Amino acid sequence: MNSWDELLSPYKQAVEELKVKLKGIREQYQKSSNHTPIEFVTGRVKPVSSILNKAARKQISFEHLEQEIQDLAGVRIVTQFVEDIETVIELIRKRTDFEILEERDYILEQKPSGYRSYHLIIFYPVQTIHGEKKIQVELQVRTLSMNFWATIEHSLRYKYSGEIPEDISMRLMRASEAAFKLDEEMSIIRDEVREAQRLLLAKHHSQDVQ
Amino acid sequence: MNSWDELLSPYKQAVEELKVKLKGIREQYQKSSNHTPIEFVTGRVKPVSSILNKAARKQISFEHLEQEIQDLAGVRIVTQFVEDIETVIELIRKRTDFEILEERDYILEQKPSGYRSYHLIIFYPVQTIHGEKKIQVELQVRTLSMNFWATIEHSLRYKYSGEIPEDISMRLMRASEAAFKLDEEMSIIRDEVREAQRLLLAKHHSQDVQ
Amino acid sequence: MNSWDELLSPYKQAVEELKVKLKGIREQYQKSSNHTPIEFVTGRVKPVSSILNKAARKQISFEHLEQEIQDLAGVRIVTQFVEDIETVIELIRKRTDFEILEERDYILEQKPSGYRSYHLIIFYPVQTIHGEKKIQVELQVRTLSMNFWATIEHSLRYKYSGEIPEDISMRLMRASEAAFKLDEEMSIIRDEVREAQRLLLAKHHSQDVQ
Amino acid sequence: MNSWDELLSPYKQAVEELKVKLKGIREQYQKSSNHTPIEFVTGRVKPVSSILNKAARKQISFEHLEQEIQDLAGVRIVTQFVEDIETVIELIRKRTDFEILEERDYILEQKPSGYRSYHLIIFYPVQTIHGEKKIQVELQVRTLSMNFWATIEHSLRYKYSGEIPEDISMRLMRASEAAFKLDEEMSIIRDEVREAQRLLLAKHHSQDVQ
Repeated sequence: MNSWDELLSPYKQAVEELKVKLKGIREQYQKSSNHTPIEFVTGRVKPVSSILNKAARKQISFEHLEQEIQDLAGVRIVTQFVEDIETVIELIRKRTDFEILEERDYILEQKPSGYRSYHLIIFYPVQTIHGEKKIQVELQVRTLSMNFWATIEHSLRYKYSGEIPEDISMRLMRASEAAFKLDEEMSIIRDEVREAQRLLLAKHHSQDVQ
Repeated sequence: MNSWDELLSPYKQAVEELKVKLKGIREQYQKSSNHTPIEFVTGRVKPVSSILNKAARKQISFEHLEQEIQDLAGVRIVTQFVEDIETVIELIRKRTDFEILEERDYILEQKPSGYRSYHLIIFYPVQTIHGEKKIQVELQVRTLSMNFWATIEHSLRYKYSGEIPEDISMRLMRASEAAFKLDEEMSIIRDEVREAQRLLLAKHHSQDVQ
Repeated sequence: MNSWDELLSPYKQAVEELKVKLKGIREQYQKSSNHTPIEFVTGRVKPVSSILNKAARKQISFEHLEQEIQDLAGVRIVTQFVEDIETVIELIRKRTDFEILEERDYILEQKPSGYRSYHLIIFYPVQTIHGEKKIQVELQVRTLSMNFWATIEHSLRYKYSGEIPEDISMRLMRASEAAFKLDEEMSIIRDEVREAQRLLLAKHHSQDVQ
Repeated sequence: MNSWDELLSPYKQAVEELKVKLKGIREQYQKSSNHTPIEFVTGRVKPVSSILNKAARKQISFEHLEQEIQDLAGVRIVTQFVEDIETVIELIRKRTDFEILEERDYILEQKPSGYRSYHLIIFYPVQTIHGEKKIQVELQVRTLSMNFWATIEHSLRYKYSGEIPEDISMRLMRASEAAFKLDEEMSIIRDEVREAQRLLLAKHHSQDVQ
């Protein structure tokens, strides 16, 4: 096993375990016939080339990689509605199988680029063949629209090596606004659906009583 | 095996095979370092309760189910950009492992509800333990935005048993317009990205030549 | 969600998590180029019909099912060599993500039927949408031969509703002996392979020194 | 995409498709409540290092690899009983989604090493992004015992670079005989189980008639 495999092996394991755990949450909601706050879950270990770039840019030595780069393991939880994000965060906070190190709310305060997401850094215990090891994992919680936009922005950022030309940057901002608008429209419908359901249930109830 | 299991078993098999085949296309693009026109692929066999509803509504007998209900098996191919849809359709038309029975373009002509997608009905051969059987499968090709909107609309349609109240219907139309707007903004960026790449490559080429 | 789904949902989740965790152990060994003590891992939740049979036979009420039936969730770890079983047990004992409630060694003392396996009952914490829940899971550790025989015996036991006719029972015992013999032959080779490797390494070392 | 990725990409795809197809056969049997002739299915693309070794040993150039090395893609179908192998072969012969190029029966005529398996070389059409491509795939059909032994033998052969010392070779032969004996004992039980079932059904029938 080379040193990269050795370094990243527990991160890969953590991603696999968290994916199974969070997909399980999704299934529990589906079986209970309630709206599931989790639309889908993805995860990845940061590619070695991206680690090297980040380490070079921030002058991090191999020995400090695990401490300094908090997204070696990343798990993304995507929701339908903005309101679902809070539900997901509550579910994460309640769990006893890992600790939360920090939280960053890029939805309340979106990044200048237009990026929106809720980030949590957790400290996750992995059982290796040499015993338990606790590692940092970044959880990202976002809506489908936020995710769509972020995927596009990420590929552009990658293509321009981080320095996106201003005109394209402005276009991205406009797309981000369109994504935000879509989230708003969806949220409005969500409230109406709930209201409609409440009225319907109330009507049924009154009929049953008569 | 009950009669539903027996009826739906080859449809389940077709969905599994088509998912593996189309995900394979995605991987081929990724390995070739080209923009992949396929973001993700999902599939499902129509739940028995939905089949019964549709059969009752359209007065279809059990014997005619397979012929009359074209979406017993459904596979969805989701793209990042509107332009990717055409690429996916071309890939599907080139394949020799099934026939295309019909195509319906709900993007050029969106449904009154606001629904947009490109549909293809294919005739797919499944090898069962009793020999080959050809069945109909519906392929839906759509962007992430179209898919997002359609998912919401489907759950509302389900909740209101197909008759969505007019005010919610109008809200859905507005959300559909927001989704359309997002697709447009993304398309504009896509062109710029391509243009930027073309310029960059041209510049590199001229430098190499000098 | 019906009461069976509700009861079994955390057991299903535990099986999925343990499969990912134990398969991860297998991968860690493979990457480290060492002989992996784990050949494959399978898991299942006990089918409702089997639960009902067992409950009827042992007169267990629905309220006591979770306490009295220890194999509602079962995970099987299959090894190539008998010697690997001890290594797997040690790995399980070292883990900090669950407790071991009891261990039963049906290899040292095989069952009268010819059944051989090492069983551990663990107490595993699952995070549900209502909080943490600790459940019992049965881990079975056995060689490929033991597993092969047990699979056959299980299907016969099922067919004869637990009462296998004596002549078939004797045939099963003979098959069990053949499986045991195969394990022994394999163990002998294993030792020779190790010895051969030791000699080879020693030879290389002496050559390097000269 | 480097040339190895490019060469092996359709082989990887063929393996994935055949695994889904053959696992589907297994599920069809399970749903029909009949004994399934397929216990499990595995598959792999030959590792580049093994391809290079074989090419060097047999003096095959890169251009002739695809024609000369027939097991670039390999799929293994493992059965419980020797008798199931024939059933699997018949299922394979009936399929219309590929052609059979040749068959080799190493069960009727086992290799001098003790190796037993039934091999079929098929010509399988893969749909690539550049159109259809037909490639060779090796299917191996064998019992659990044969598979167990072959796995051990393969790892020893690998360790001794193909030249297993005579004393270990003899040990392997003895293990192969033990595996063969286990298959025989299992076959005898299988016949008895069938006979028992036939008697039972006959008895039920006579009772129903009275």
